[in-house]
Amino acid sequence: MPEPLNSVGIVEPQIAEFDSPLQLTSSGVLNQYSLAYETYGELNANRSNALLICHALSSDHHAAGFHSKTDKSAGWWDLLIGPGKPIDTNRFFVVCSNNLGGCSGSTGPASINPSTGQPYGPDFPIVTVADWVESQARLSDYLGIEQWAAVIGGSLGGMQVLQWSTTYPNRLKHAIVIASAAKLTAQNIGFNDVARQAIRTDPDFHNGDYYKHNTRPARGLRVARMLGHITYLSDDLMANKFGRSLRQKAKFDYEFSPEFEVESYLRYQGDQFIDRFDANTYLLMTKALDYFDPAADYEGRLGKALANATADFLVVSFSSDWRFSTERSREIVRALQSNKLNVSYAEIESPHGHDSFLLEIDHYTQVMHAYINRIAGECLGANS
Amino acid sequence: MPEPLNSVGIVEPQIAEFDSPLQLTSSGVLNQYSLAYETYGELNANRSNALLICHALSSDHHAAGFHSKTDKSAGWWDLLIGPGKPIDTNRFFVVCSNNLGGCSGSTGPASINPSTGQPYGPDFPIVTVADWVESQARLSDYLGIEQWAAVIGGSLGGMQVLQWSTTYPNRLKHAIVIASAAKLTAQNIGFNDVARQAIRTDPDFHNGDYYKHNTRPARGLRVARMLGHITYLSDDLMANKFGRSLRQKAKFDYEFSPEFEVESYLRYQGDQFIDRFDANTYLLMTKALDYFDPAADYEGRLGKALANATADFLVVSFSSDWRFSTERSREIVRALQSNKLNVSYAEIESPHGHDSFLLEIDHYTQVMHAYINRIAGECLGANS
Repeated sequence: MPEPLNSVGIVEPQIAEFDSPLQLTSSGVLNQYSLAYETYGELNANRSNALLICHALSSDHHAAGFHSKTDKSAGWWDLLIGPGKPIDTNRFFVVCSNNLGGCSGSTGPASINPSTGQPYGPDFPIVTVADWVESQARLSDYLGIEQWAAVIGGSLGGMQVLQWSTTYPNRLKHAIVIASAAKLTAQNIGFNDVARQAIRTDPDFHNGDYYKHNTRPARGLRVARMLGHITYLSDDLMANKFGRSLRQKAKFDYEFSPEFEVESYLRYQGDQFIDRFDANTYLLMTKALDYFDPAADYEGRLGKALANATADFLVVSFSSDWRFSTERSREIVRALQSNKLNVSYAEIESPHGHDSFLLEIDHYTQVMHAYINRIAGECLGANS
Repeated sequence: MPEPLNSVGIVEPQIAEFDSPLQLTSSGVLNQYSLAYETYGELNANRSNALLICHALSSDHHAAGFHSKTDKSAGWWDLLIGPGKPIDTNRFFVVCSNNLGGCSGSTGPASINPSTGQPYGPDFPIVTVADWVESQARLSDYLGIEQWAAVIGGSLGGMQVLQWSTTYPNRLKHAIVIASAAKLTAQNIGFNDVARQAIRTDPDFHNGDYYKHNTRPARGLRVARMLGHITYLSDDLMANKFGRSLRQKAKFDYEFSPEFEVESYLRYQGDQFIDRFDANTYLLMTKALDYFDPAADYEGRLGKALANATADFLVVSFSSDWRFSTERSREIVRALQSNKLNVSYAEIESPHGHDSFLLEIDHYTQVMHAYINRIAGECLGANS
């Protein structure tokens, strides 16, 4: 494909190997592990221009650019990351790593467990947002980055940003939390558990040991992804995008093959996903979402939980996002304000639901551009 | 169990057999079929006191009372049906039948197909709301009821009421449409399709012929029901009822067994359902929901579609119902009003989501009581 002018171009994933044991929240330990990551732009001499991107449920370290000249799609946040884009690779050194437990190169359930010589499968420990931040801090050391100009993430990525801001307050100057929440609601946990049950009761799941059986719980993962997609979109958007339109026909056939466009869309999304994602990783990511609740250790007081944060914050939410509603973002804003932190908050009008954080929305792009310009001014000096 | 004072008591389901072919919307034909039904109260001499109850997705003809002295739970609408209750069996003769395609006694996919001597399975034809109304009209003839004092239903049952009002305008004096819609949204169709895909991709589904294999797609049906339950409740209700409470423990175990109360609740609901419901029936019911759209034949104009209705209407919706939102009920009200019909509309404040129509909510009970009192006045005379 012709490379767009403002693209980071061809990028190559890299692997960082770690062999000092990582104690996990769950009491598990990973004695050695790898993190896959990509970088875009150049680290400046005083190492003040580094931005860390934290990814959400189903994405990975490939946030921008292309893996080859024939690569059909760009990284998942290519709209925001590139030369001249809000996350401007002409000015910043941008890092994104695949979360531990992932399936795109970092150590995860499909990786070989050195103590057995077999894939981890169900023996891969539960990982939490705090564990990811710990592993990302070690990656920061590995890359020689003492302090991030900003840590940035949407959805589950936003939870990692919140965790960074309290675990390593001195290692980030700014925190950008987009379409996120300080904890999931019961409804959200419910949706996650339905997805997990679809996967775990698929007979091809084999208690997570499906690699051994040379199969995978594709049916369950497909259903999980279809359900996810409904909750990432808004009711109105689905009404406008699909409504009750039929698929390539004028009348009902009264049969179980897809008749409505929306059925066809969801099944397509499900089918695409099973070819690129590992079911055990999906399970781990949804559990990490469910567990995250920094206020739980402070009698539910989020202000207390965020008390030692020092970064400046940008919090962004989207009007039609019902999975991570604007109210959840406002809770974060109030908690940060109670600690007298510098907080900017933007509620973006968008019909696109939770998916908005991945999309091109003028106001959103402008807000990100302006805030990251401000970071450039502060971290890189006036002439940067 | 001690029989409550205002219960219809022990009731016995009955079966009506039909052997004149029923032409279905789908082009299928059922040459003979049975309808299971129950009745409560007594039909008066001039047959003016009959009420027809239409059931929703997962219920059946057992709307009130108990099947035996040891029966642990009453019929699904026992809160509303009984002596002195809003649907007052001291004054009305109440009929409820199991929809065709059901799994509680009416002919459905698990019934023997007379032309093969085997269960219908996937050969059971797709049935629509219009087909159900046709079969209910025949049941009305069979019972000698020329005109219903009211036809009443919630959710999918409300769709049947709308269909009754236009197909047989002279056969009902009142129509009560509760928590319903004149058509499903794309989001609703999406949820239904996820449920269907969970069932149809369960390896025990055997393309719907699972009876032959002496099995059933219990895993898929369980996931479908879990998902359904999330959408029947409101986000707020789930937050209040479960929140992030843990199940019999103070701390996370970091494992995949249910940790949160909400997981435990949903799995329990799923487990209960698979013991009482047939997956093929679930598929048929969700398809009937998806297809219903009386305005489709009138360029989307619902007023036109309901033009030949003559009944007086009560339309009821619930504030927190996001699966059949109050806006859907208001569309129905506007369409009825455009036809100069007598329409009462009540929007009930309730935190219980779509499930509200099955629950004891003072304002709801009062509205039903008052409206059905009015029906009694009109249909039974002042002294009834």
